[in-house]
Amino acid sequence: MVLTVYGPSFASTKRVIACLLEKGIEYSVVPVDIFKGENNDPAYRQLQPFGKVPVIRDGDYVLFESRAILRYIAEKYKSQGTDLYGNTIEARGQVEQWLEVEAQNFHPPAYALVLDVMFGPKLGIVPDPKLIKENEEKLGKVLDVYEERLSRNKYLAGDFFSLADLSHLPFTEYLISFVKKKEMISSRPHVSAWWDDISSRPSWREVLKIPLPDILN
Amino acid sequence: MVLTVYGPSFASTKRVIACLLEKGIEYSVVPVDIFKGENNDPAYRQLQPFGKVPVIRDGDYVLFESRAILRYIAEKYKSQGTDLYGNTIEARGQVEQWLEVEAQNFHPPAYALVLDVMFGPKLGIVPDPKLIKENEEKLGKVLDVYEERLSRNKYLAGDFFSLADLSHLPFTEYLISFVKKKEMISSRPHVSAWWDDISSRPSWREVLKIPLPDILN
Repeated sequence: MVLTVYGPSFASTKRVIACLLEKGIEYSVVPVDIFKGENNDPAYRQLQPFGKVPVIRDGDYVLFESRAILRYIAEKYKSQGTDLYGNTIEARGQVEQWLEVEAQNFHPPAYALVLDVMFGPKLGIVPDPKLIKENEEKLGKVLDVYEERLSRNKYLAGDFFSLADLSHLPFTEYLISFVKKKEMISSRPHVSAWWDDISSRPSWREVLKIPLPDILN
Repeated sequence: MVLTVYGPSFASTKRVIACLLEKGIEYSVVPVDIFKGENNDPAYRQLQPFGKVPVIRDGDYVLFESRAILRYIAEKYKSQGTDLYGNTIEARGQVEQWLEVEAQNFHPPAYALVLDVMFGPKLGIVPDPKLIKENEEKLGKVLDVYEERLSRNKYLAGDFFSLADLSHLPFTEYLISFVKKKEMISSRPHVSAWWDDISSRPSWREVLKIPLPDILN
């Protein structure tokens, strides 16, 4: 059974694809372009009632929300490819903790910067210096905590690459390549070494070949 | 070993306490008052580097982020008390999906309303009608999806009470009792029946006895 992934061009979906590649799971993609309103198609809304990407279909089983999909894949295919969840309940707790930190602390300011600086001009929105400053400050404080954490552990959840690290890939890539905030990473030595490590994994190099949303071309 | 919970007065912590009560796990509490700056105490920052609540200590093991703690408890004590995670990988996937929906879709507008309307006046912030309207609209759209979902399933993840339902308890309680938005629940019959069901569970009735943060008194 080949697993199907909807909306491959978008950042949240790239979390899922990186995870599938780490696990060596075969998949096919169905393009869904949010900027063309394809997410409002009634058939798509049947799969994802909020009209977001990604969605996966694994046989008859449909699942949405990227971080829920990561957990499902990491659990269902635990013994295949990279173990992204840790070997004990305690290690798994650490993965969950830092995956929640990504979702609750890192993602909101990163997303705000990406939306304003990277997509804003394409959507007729003039980037807002006050919003940029506020979110850079918020993100900087989060990265300061990461710097301390990564000075004691190679990866966020401990000594193993996990869902928590993987979940940071798409938006950190956007921050560096499109929002032009590389300095926020490179100025923090342990964050910088961590980023060099996780972003050079073959899975992520492969994800980078996926075309960006049309609106950016 | 008695598990320790830091910051019991706050809404996110009440998720954790409701979970512990569902599992029948003995716990003790350590008050941490954010409005008095106790979360900036260096010893507390050693436990939670972002200065948020809750934190738990289970023997030597320390964990933060409420939804990560929920998952840790539900996994570690799976066979004890209410099973909050489902019996199959697929059921667990649904729990994860709706727990992420709570975190990503329900929580942001609910939190914005609570902060502005419930805590704002105590913090010298004048509630902002535009912010209230925008977040009510966002939350209303989320609840419309819940209404449809709950017309087909008794609970969010299926036919069993799970972490996904439990995680909605503290902020929905605030929305009804303090933000005075009961109508957003009662106007949607299936959401209303679901709320009556989950909020009448003995665990939640017990959580309601915990004193509110001092600032509200």
